[in-house]
Amino acid sequence: MAKELTSRSENYSQWYNELVVKADLAENSAVRGCMVIKPYGYAIWEKMQAELDRMFKETGHVNAYFPLFIPKSFFSKEASHVEGFAKECAVVTHYRLKNDPNGKGIVVDPDAKLEEELIVRPTSETIIWHTYKNWIQSYRDLPILCNQWANVVRWEMRTRLFLRTAEFLWQEGHTAHATKQEALEETERMVNVYADFAENFMALPVIKGAKSENERFAGALETYSIEALMQDGKALQSGTSHFLGQNFAKAFDVKFANRDGKDEYVWATSWGVSTRLMGALIMAHSDDNGLVLPPKLAPFQVVIIPIYRKDEQLAEISSKVDEVVAKLKAKGISVKYDSLDTKKPGWKFAEYELKGVPVRLAIGPRDLENGTVEVARRDTLTKEVVGLDNIDQYVADLLDDIQQNIYKKAFDYRTEHTTPVDTYEELKEVLNTKGGFALAHWDGTAETEQKIKEETKGTIRCIPFDGVKEEGKCIYSGKPSSQRVLFALAY
Amino acid sequence: MAKELTSRSENYSQWYNELVVKADLAENSAVRGCMVIKPYGYAIWEKMQAELDRMFKETGHVNAYFPLFIPKSFFSKEASHVEGFAKECAVVTHYRLKNDPNGKGIVVDPDAKLEEELIVRPTSETIIWHTYKNWIQSYRDLPILCNQWANVVRWEMRTRLFLRTAEFLWQEGHTAHATKQEALEETERMVNVYADFAENFMALPVIKGAKSENERFAGALETYSIEALMQDGKALQSGTSHFLGQNFAKAFDVKFANRDGKDEYVWATSWGVSTRLMGALIMAHSDDNGLVLPPKLAPFQVVIIPIYRKDEQLAEISSKVDEVVAKLKAKGISVKYDSLDTKKPGWKFAEYELKGVPVRLAIGPRDLENGTVEVARRDTLTKEVVGLDNIDQYVADLLDDIQQNIYKKAFDYRTEHTTPVDTYEELKEVLNTKGGFALAHWDGTAETEQKIKEETKGTIRCIPFDGVKEEGKCIYSGKPSSQRVLFALAY
Repeated sequence: MAKELTSRSENYSQWYNELVVKADLAENSAVRGCMVIKPYGYAIWEKMQAELDRMFKETGHVNAYFPLFIPKSFFSKEASHVEGFAKECAVVTHYRLKNDPNGKGIVVDPDAKLEEELIVRPTSETIIWHTYKNWIQSYRDLPILCNQWANVVRWEMRTRLFLRTAEFLWQEGHTAHATKQEALEETERMVNVYADFAENFMALPVIKGAKSENERFAGALETYSIEALMQDGKALQSGTSHFLGQNFAKAFDVKFANRDGKDEYVWATSWGVSTRLMGALIMAHSDDNGLVLPPKLAPFQVVIIPIYRKDEQLAEISSKVDEVVAKLKAKGISVKYDSLDTKKPGWKFAEYELKGVPVRLAIGPRDLENGTVEVARRDTLTKEVVGLDNIDQYVADLLDDIQQNIYKKAFDYRTEHTTPVDTYEELKEVLNTKGGFALAHWDGTAETEQKIKEETKGTIRCIPFDGVKEEGKCIYSGKPSSQRVLFALAY
Repeated sequence: MAKELTSRSENYSQWYNELVVKADLAENSAVRGCMVIKPYGYAIWEKMQAELDRMFKETGHVNAYFPLFIPKSFFSKEASHVEGFAKECAVVTHYRLKNDPNGKGIVVDPDAKLEEELIVRPTSETIIWHTYKNWIQSYRDLPILCNQWANVVRWEMRTRLFLRTAEFLWQEGHTAHATKQEALEETERMVNVYADFAENFMALPVIKGAKSENERFAGALETYSIEALMQDGKALQSGTSHFLGQNFAKAFDVKFANRDGKDEYVWATSWGVSTRLMGALIMAHSDDNGLVLPPKLAPFQVVIIPIYRKDEQLAEISSKVDEVVAKLKAKGISVKYDSLDTKKPGWKFAEYELKGVPVRLAIGPRDLENGTVEVARRDTLTKEVVGLDNIDQYVADLLDDIQQNIYKKAFDYRTEHTTPVDTYEELKEVLNTKGGFALAHWDGTAETEQKIKEETKGTIRCIPFDGVKEEGKCIYSGKPSSQRVLFALAY
């Protein structure tokens, strides 16, 4: 096969980079750090969007759209926010090009300089809270539960397709509430939505928890996240939900008259997932033969390949395949029939394996005689010959089984790679050799976390919501701790 | 009612501006020329997107995503393209902010200047054809049928919500073909898709035709468009489809090996519709009471309002309404039940009229006794009392009727406002007083078109595809002409 991949054991990072490109998911563009999402990759992202959008709407949210540009002065209004984002902003300074007077192509027109520079949004809290000021007068205007699907830009120095790109696609929810309690509930609701999506659609087990202060979003009082484990033992933060307190309301002077007619500042949350989820999906499940896609997010769930020598055989097979396709579609299963004659079946087998199509049906003249079809499943790479009569139900059940099996495999991997450690030496040992999550006691201080990060590169991924309360001692400082936290090397 | 609108006859332009804001569709933002699309407006755009996306996929297209930024040098590669877009570009020159050393907030870091400036895409032909170069080697790689849903920026000096904004949302299709014929067919296919969408979903009759040379897209050999007529007699170009010939293939050196193994340049099309369609939708149908939405694009098609004095009455009404809602939903009808007690029924009636909800049901204690409901339709503002037994079928039929009636009204208006003219005086008379489309003979030259535009502000909207071939004389130059073209004042 022409598109052979580096194996995971040989070089995991290279395996990932090659897979993204060879499976036609994305590629680097002419613009530093910006990617092109190719049709096959985009089709997966569209499936993710559709499910998430449905879940957001079911929890009462509506979509809206806010400007791409943010006036520079808006950034300065929330101190920790500007600190977090100023270093990686694309800045628009001019609004016109012109012909070079010296005849050397086109140049920026110096007469078209903006009075105030515009920042390409890295996230939209500032422009949105500036807007909300006009939308909110009284408690009757609350809550506001808006989401936005958009592109954002963060001028990252080291980029990798899907995982860290200068421009990426995401959704950002921005909600406004009358009470702290309600905003906290919303923050938790949305991290639960993300976890639900990751587990039930991406087949990706995640750990929900709170971020330590060091790892919080710039401007948040609390950041909750879902953390997933990749096959190289590194963690990947896959979604975050922030309780912003009244920080942005104060920065943009957004008050509401409460039921007693008194003015109060509004409470805020924001939450987002991005095309980074594509990276998580790819890295969590795929193998040395290529992508492994959970059926619920596969652009097509079944591919059918005819095996034949003569054109008459193809005609007979195609006629039978049409029946099979109709039966599968009636069950809501998406199917591609690849009868193109410019490629051999062997090439097609490898190609769809690389692209992670969950189920492959191959059908030849002997199958026609016997009323059978060869069914191959991508996750286990096993094959079976099956009767055509109940093929629709068989495939439907198989897709369910694959979805569950992929989840179970990732879950078992994570279980094997979650290690309680009681000493700093053990932590280092886990991070350096076995990999995965290490559960350790921590004294709760930013200083200790920073020291551990500097010495081991390991970070606190989260303080798990469902962690057992137990007395212990910080593995670094020996100070008392009431709960283990999750350490890992991370993307 | 608090939100009274200026009437159309009084000031059409002001009526539009007020309506967009008061019906919660969009508003101006803190960034010059950029709008905020509010949830109610965005919900209409989402419905448009969903239908268009389905139609694109049914005609064989796939979605992808290309970078927001375009290197400046790419623009110069296609001469007429840069000429068309250079004057209205947002230019990114720096990638970092920093604290002002003099303590005056944050400033652009002069050390973070880009080597080559990046343009925020005004349209994506250049970056996409640069990308296609790597995707295309042989005829087997063709056609490529990609679409992108994205935001674009054109630094317009005079902006109006939806109609002309610095940033807007759109889709842009970019296709690559082996033959001229195939590209021309694609160009026509997509203008037909747009016309189909406009007529069957937006209830907007449109005229399909070719643009004159003056009005073509920068870089196109042919531009086809759909042209709609607004209630003030001005035309609105609502969608365009471009045959780009081999211009971009030559600019970016994109060749393919044909079946004989010889290299040829690839043929291209591009086509797009934008949030400008929202402007067309609003202006074509709405009245002095507010929006009139075609049922197929309304965020919710039916609103139900309880009429009551006592809480017990509300409980009884709500219980009956629950049944009605279930029946309507079972028919695929979207419904909102507004039982909020903070507003009076009269306020709600006006509000949903303003928002263009196609059907309003009002139900009070007497209706409960009689098994009836009051049904009001938005397009005609008429009311009827109807039995509850078959309310679902009644409303389903009514929605169909409203969709057709809105279309018919717009169609009749256009028919009345399409005037054949045989002299230049008649043309001026139509443009200045009656308004609407004028069908006139034209000699086919850019000079004549330009003169007429300067003297009357009227432009050639298109050369209609279904125009009758007839010999005539240009109303301006007296030179021979074989078909009438469509003149109008235009947005």
